[in-house]
Amino acid sequence: MIETATESSILEQYQNVRLQTERLCDPLQAEDFAVQPIGDVSPPKWHLGHTTWFFETFILKGLLNQESFDSNYDFLFNSYYESVGARILRTNRGNITRPSVDAIRDYRKAIDDRMAKILSNNPSEEILKLTELGLHHEQQHQELLLADIKYILGHNPLFPTYLESKSVSKSNIVSPLTFTKVDGGMYAIGHEGDDFAYDNEFGKHHVFLHDFGFADRLTTNGEFLEFITDKGYSDFRHWLSAGWQWIQDNEIDHPLYWHKIRDEWHEYTLAGLKPIDLAAPVTHISYFEAEAFAQWKGKRLLTEFEWEVACELYGDKKESRFVENNILHPSPAEQSNQLYGDVWEWTGSSYLPYPFYEKKAGALGEYNGKFMINQMVLRGGSCATPISHIRSTYRNFFPTDARWQFTGIRLAKWLK
Amino acid sequence: MIETATESSILEQYQNVRLQTERLCDPLQAEDFAVQPIGDVSPPKWHLGHTTWFFETFILKGLLNQESFDSNYDFLFNSYYESVGARILRTNRGNITRPSVDAIRDYRKAIDDRMAKILSNNPSEEILKLTELGLHHEQQHQELLLADIKYILGHNPLFPTYLESKSVSKSNIVSPLTFTKVDGGMYAIGHEGDDFAYDNEFGKHHVFLHDFGFADRLTTNGEFLEFITDKGYSDFRHWLSAGWQWIQDNEIDHPLYWHKIRDEWHEYTLAGLKPIDLAAPVTHISYFEAEAFAQWKGKRLLTEFEWEVACELYGDKKESRFVENNILHPSPAEQSNQLYGDVWEWTGSSYLPYPFYEKKAGALGEYNGKFMINQMVLRGGSCATPISHIRSTYRNFFPTDARWQFTGIRLAKWLK
Amino acid sequence: MIETATESSILEQYQNVRLQTERLCDPLQAEDFAVQPIGDVSPPKWHLGHTTWFFETFILKGLLNQESFDSNYDFLFNSYYESVGARILRTNRGNITRPSVDAIRDYRKAIDDRMAKILSNNPSEEILKLTELGLHHEQQHQELLLADIKYILGHNPLFPTYLESKSVSKSNIVSPLTFTKVDGGMYAIGHEGDDFAYDNEFGKHHVFLHDFGFADRLTTNGEFLEFITDKGYSDFRHWLSAGWQWIQDNEIDHPLYWHKIRDEWHEYTLAGLKPIDLAAPVTHISYFEAEAFAQWKGKRLLTEFEWEVACELYGDKKESRFVENNILHPSPAEQSNQLYGDVWEWTGSSYLPYPFYEKKAGALGEYNGKFMINQMVLRGGSCATPISHIRSTYRNFFPTDARWQFTGIRLAKWLK
Amino acid sequence: MIETATESSILEQYQNVRLQTERLCDPLQAEDFAVQPIGDVSPPKWHLGHTTWFFETFILKGLLNQESFDSNYDFLFNSYYESVGARILRTNRGNITRPSVDAIRDYRKAIDDRMAKILSNNPSEEILKLTELGLHHEQQHQELLLADIKYILGHNPLFPTYLESKSVSKSNIVSPLTFTKVDGGMYAIGHEGDDFAYDNEFGKHHVFLHDFGFADRLTTNGEFLEFITDKGYSDFRHWLSAGWQWIQDNEIDHPLYWHKIRDEWHEYTLAGLKPIDLAAPVTHISYFEAEAFAQWKGKRLLTEFEWEVACELYGDKKESRFVENNILHPSPAEQSNQLYGDVWEWTGSSYLPYPFYEKKAGALGEYNGKFMINQMVLRGGSCATPISHIRSTYRNFFPTDARWQFTGIRLAKWLK
Repeated sequence: MIETATESSILEQYQNVRLQTERLCDPLQAEDFAVQPIGDVSPPKWHLGHTTWFFETFILKGLLNQESFDSNYDFLFNSYYESVGARILRTNRGNITRPSVDAIRDYRKAIDDRMAKILSNNPSEEILKLTELGLHHEQQHQELLLADIKYILGHNPLFPTYLESKSVSKSNIVSPLTFTKVDGGMYAIGHEGDDFAYDNEFGKHHVFLHDFGFADRLTTNGEFLEFITDKGYSDFRHWLSAGWQWIQDNEIDHPLYWHKIRDEWHEYTLAGLKPIDLAAPVTHISYFEAEAFAQWKGKRLLTEFEWEVACELYGDKKESRFVENNILHPSPAEQSNQLYGDVWEWTGSSYLPYPFYEKKAGALGEYNGKFMINQMVLRGGSCATPISHIRSTYRNFFPTDARWQFTGIRLAKWLK
Repeated sequence: MIETATESSILEQYQNVRLQTERLCDPLQAEDFAVQPIGDVSPPKWHLGHTTWFFETFILKGLLNQESFDSNYDFLFNSYYESVGARILRTNRGNITRPSVDAIRDYRKAIDDRMAKILSNNPSEEILKLTELGLHHEQQHQELLLADIKYILGHNPLFPTYLESKSVSKSNIVSPLTFTKVDGGMYAIGHEGDDFAYDNEFGKHHVFLHDFGFADRLTTNGEFLEFITDKGYSDFRHWLSAGWQWIQDNEIDHPLYWHKIRDEWHEYTLAGLKPIDLAAPVTHISYFEAEAFAQWKGKRLLTEFEWEVACELYGDKKESRFVENNILHPSPAEQSNQLYGDVWEWTGSSYLPYPFYEKKAGALGEYNGKFMINQMVLRGGSCATPISHIRSTYRNFFPTDARWQFTGIRLAKWLK
Repeated sequence: MIETATESSILEQYQNVRLQTERLCDPLQAEDFAVQPIGDVSPPKWHLGHTTWFFETFILKGLLNQESFDSNYDFLFNSYYESVGARILRTNRGNITRPSVDAIRDYRKAIDDRMAKILSNNPSEEILKLTELGLHHEQQHQELLLADIKYILGHNPLFPTYLESKSVSKSNIVSPLTFTKVDGGMYAIGHEGDDFAYDNEFGKHHVFLHDFGFADRLTTNGEFLEFITDKGYSDFRHWLSAGWQWIQDNEIDHPLYWHKIRDEWHEYTLAGLKPIDLAAPVTHISYFEAEAFAQWKGKRLLTEFEWEVACELYGDKKESRFVENNILHPSPAEQSNQLYGDVWEWTGSSYLPYPFYEKKAGALGEYNGKFMINQMVLRGGSCATPISHIRSTYRNFFPTDARWQFTGIRLAKWLK
Repeated sequence: MIETATESSILEQYQNVRLQTERLCDPLQAEDFAVQPIGDVSPPKWHLGHTTWFFETFILKGLLNQESFDSNYDFLFNSYYESVGARILRTNRGNITRPSVDAIRDYRKAIDDRMAKILSNNPSEEILKLTELGLHHEQQHQELLLADIKYILGHNPLFPTYLESKSVSKSNIVSPLTFTKVDGGMYAIGHEGDDFAYDNEFGKHHVFLHDFGFADRLTTNGEFLEFITDKGYSDFRHWLSAGWQWIQDNEIDHPLYWHKIRDEWHEYTLAGLKPIDLAAPVTHISYFEAEAFAQWKGKRLLTEFEWEVACELYGDKKESRFVENNILHPSPAEQSNQLYGDVWEWTGSSYLPYPFYEKKAGALGEYNGKFMINQMVLRGGSCATPISHIRSTYRNFFPTDARWQFTGIRLAKWLK
């Protein structure tokens, strides 16, 4: 179950998560809900519909044989489930001007009413399991929603403010980078037990690690600026071949959302366009950029296994900044080692199945397994992640050129 | 000046045209204003802004040195004028969620107020000329706006109704196709005199025509259905090589907006999805389809010169159906020969400059001349054209694969 | 029939044309025959096979029901005739390493032997007509072959010499540009009579022309260099919108085959890389470039009708340079007005059917008609055209971005 | 050093490897050397030049400061070494008709003469090291050369024979599939010591493995045909999402080189088109297909670590079929477990650096490291690999859609 809510009933949890999705949309104007500037970004209204469709499809219709709210919605709000039938092309989501946001809110309301009845009335174990999955699914979409909103507003020439930020420190003082040693040996990796986890985390297994050191904080904008200043983007020696091709083809020479205005670097944040905070973690970079930075620095990224061990040993959710902190931007390290929160950390591990991994049958088997190729694992959650959604074993994943999520860098090194 | 308004003052004309643009948007919901499903289609809100930008840029700022309403709008609402500076990429217009529709309405209001002051106060000849051009420009955009709205709503799986149609006849009775003869000889083509016309119409000149016959009505859905039934879309012999390639690449085998539902052909109209009216003119077809149909029929299309001569001799605006009729869909021929209205008629003429044509200097020189390549001329206006906007000399033009406008077919033949 | 050969028998004509194709290949090495660097360019060996296939398909098999030499060749050497069956994708012609050049020469020999028998033995009128067409077809391919060889060798970093040039004048003295007046009036355009002409030239008809003036020589490299020096390639005002897009997308800022080496412009010719000859006609330019140059100069291109009239009045084949002169590069004007030869002249006319044009039935109907869209007409032949192949009524055509043929510019102007 | 040649001098080894490259080209005709049907495939002549360029660049010029044989060759025959300067675009290699094959053979001869002098004359350790690397590099290119030749000839409609095969068994009797168990535990992975190995194999390190079973032979054509017959290519449930997209986009429903002729499956082999041998290993399949087959079968692929351990325990080079066997096609299992030879086995491991991996400085650092992303590891060598080139630690790698190499499937399973 959603971790911070151990006392609360499943219905309360349901209502809290559902409400949070709607709250995230409060600052939007009607047109903001409808557009899809690139294929990766879904219109906010689509998230509102799709998360609702999930409960309707898998619980109300799948388990309880209830009638469709509107059969068109099966087509409109299916994301990638081939088992569930036809769906609108991902890149055509931006054409869905109807149903209107209001009509989708009515849809949410109707499904929520049906779900409330069911959850109040001794739901079966199977319903509880799927509800739990649906809530985690919706939390994932809350994070995507924020990233998508940022992309939509951040690519508007007016650079609108989504939310005035409570505080983003302007202190440029960052502690020097040090590395914490972790001893080599056998470690258990992955999830087991009854707590919720995605299928890709299951299959607790053993991994042998060699001694390694991990940076005690994230890489900062200041450090990344040194890479830029040192012409890091124009020296092929730091780059993977595919990364070098990618920066040539896309004329990339700075992180997404950076803008040089009258010779000073600025960054679009959900609080508007701001001068770069040198002490804050660099974010919105691709795996290619993370890897090139590490090469340039003579270091490397952690594997996902090393990260998980480091997090088990040193991670501290309490001190970390998640979506609940309402900053919506990564913050300077200060006390925290930032293993949790602020930015998703690219690891040097490909997203592949764990030993003994088995895909579930049916549509839910499509949740994770079919994406296990040509993507890299990210760990730790970000300033846009709900605190109750993240775990030390949580495996996020994106292709090597994705930049629109809150992604960043933690350095590591071998210790021989 | 706008033709039907000879009695009215320039200010009244200005206000009428401007009001009409807004009326066309009345049936839209907020999200409908923002999206751009394909590059050709602009978001309705962009039309609202761009037509306003035209008056601001060329009169208020260009002639009168007034300050920008908002300097961002120069970038957002410039269409293709290289002389006027940078502009948003055409294909990115769908990303402009801000300014909101309300903010753009404020912009319209502010510019309308400034224009009203100027037009009430003995405007100079130059201001009058540019106002007239701006109004014709806005009428052009009214037609584009309707076509774009149709594309947006017509590609939504819910097929929403824009406007309940007053009446679309369901009579399947069409008069047999006959041809009216026009004698060969020397004819004067193009516009001269003080009435408004675009620069591409000027340069009255002589053209020698051979005897020809033109169909006394447009090609109907029923006739086009025979082409489909005869496997016209799968027989290369009817097609231009580039057209054949185009239908292969795009898997095209019927007009845009046609849908076969339970074995019956339907057509999306602005009044919603309707069974095909066999007596109504076929519309939303490309030049390639118009030409292939004519080939299959053993006929041809008129040249634009033949069309102009036929229209001078036999055209009758009064009996024709324009946007003012509020049908917003082509109607069966009945009395009219349909030279005017219903659908734009593809001609077999390339869009090229007339003899003596000269591009104007500056931005207004970009209005027409630079598009004179690889496009075909269309004549006569459509059910989406304002009656005061069309003339016998009016030259519309689109690439050979464009289908989202109200385009159609009139057959012709040689008479030896 | 082939014009210069009035005395010779059809068999002699056949053998002369066929031999000439092979002679053009003499300077090639085996690998030169096989490659296809861009889709437009066919491998030389493909031309050898395809011209042979034409006689086999339309005469030996089509009229005389002879057996296929090799059924694979039907697939390999069909160019674009849908009526004749499947064919290799145009862009895959570069994969045909087998049959070898020697095997294709055997194929030529075998078909030539069969044809010789037939042509020596009182051939029917139908065979004579198709043989004549086949020879004109082969002459067309001789010109394409030279352009393709130039492309292949000219894109090799070693810039090999195809043929040492007899002489390319280096005199920079060019006569000042003057214009010859042609009076307006009714003119007959197109071909009639029994002499050979392509179907696209037939349909003699009347056209009314206004007074015009045509430049008495082609535009030179020196004049085109002024356009470059005046930053013609970076000023949008001279360009058609589609042309401007094209030079941006392809980063074009000089004619094909020009290279700036140590600050001096050179040009790849079939005689190797040479310093630009300022007095020679500019060549290997697209329609877009020709049109932009004329705009910049305040002039225009001739229509194809004006060109034909000018040629009838002033053209002189005897003084002109064709492939028989063996220069294989356009030469300075000197005495000639260059209406014939040196370079194909882009006209301002779209390639469209003449009045009364009718496509032939069957495969030969695919020769011309299906290409009549989105191409511009060129007139007059070039230094790569056989003199017996060209006529005042001859209509060549290419898309607006084609540059690999010997294309150039003649300016014109209105005379009011 | 090249393993089978322990007795032979470095010069003899050099001469043997170089000669073998030329022997592989013996069956080619001149045009076969020049073409590049897809970007992945290089023209055979390019391999001849590039392998020579390697010795010239890194030894003759790099170490000994000798003059370039021809400075154009630096540009033409550089593959991907950014450190060494400009190079021809990979996709333009098919345009290099000059230098001719004969000229490249002269180049080989000249460099071989220079190398012979050096190798006969007490070469330094550094020269020896680079010579050894150059020979392994050339052996890699021998395998690519065969795959490229197969692609070129196998995409020719004449399906030419490269080499009559000595014998491809037609027995359809295959032993039932059994699995050999390997116990879990700590294993040492990677290369150490003085023998030659690529930098990507170095860094001997420990990996913990769980119990697993590996199939005692490769997957056969017969087994793969069952997958096809069971509609494996049209059931999304077996496929990775990216693989499903890939087969849709490319309309793939059988291995590369399979052709259904009159209802019987055939396969293009280097001995020509043959009926499928059901007992032979399936080959020329992508990772996507290998993974989907394993999913369908309820099994999985080995990780590269499991493979290496299995090979150390059970691999037997002597019984395996390599290029020296001159079959040039995978053979049925018979006695061998086929861990070595026949086909490269796709593993379920991404190509990533081993612990402690460090890129070399300079151009040789580009050999492997920069490709460590979005590729999968293959192990074991194939019927096109020289026996002296392969090792249990050898890591080959290709993108997930590559099929033109001799790639295949070995199944594995977990043992809990």
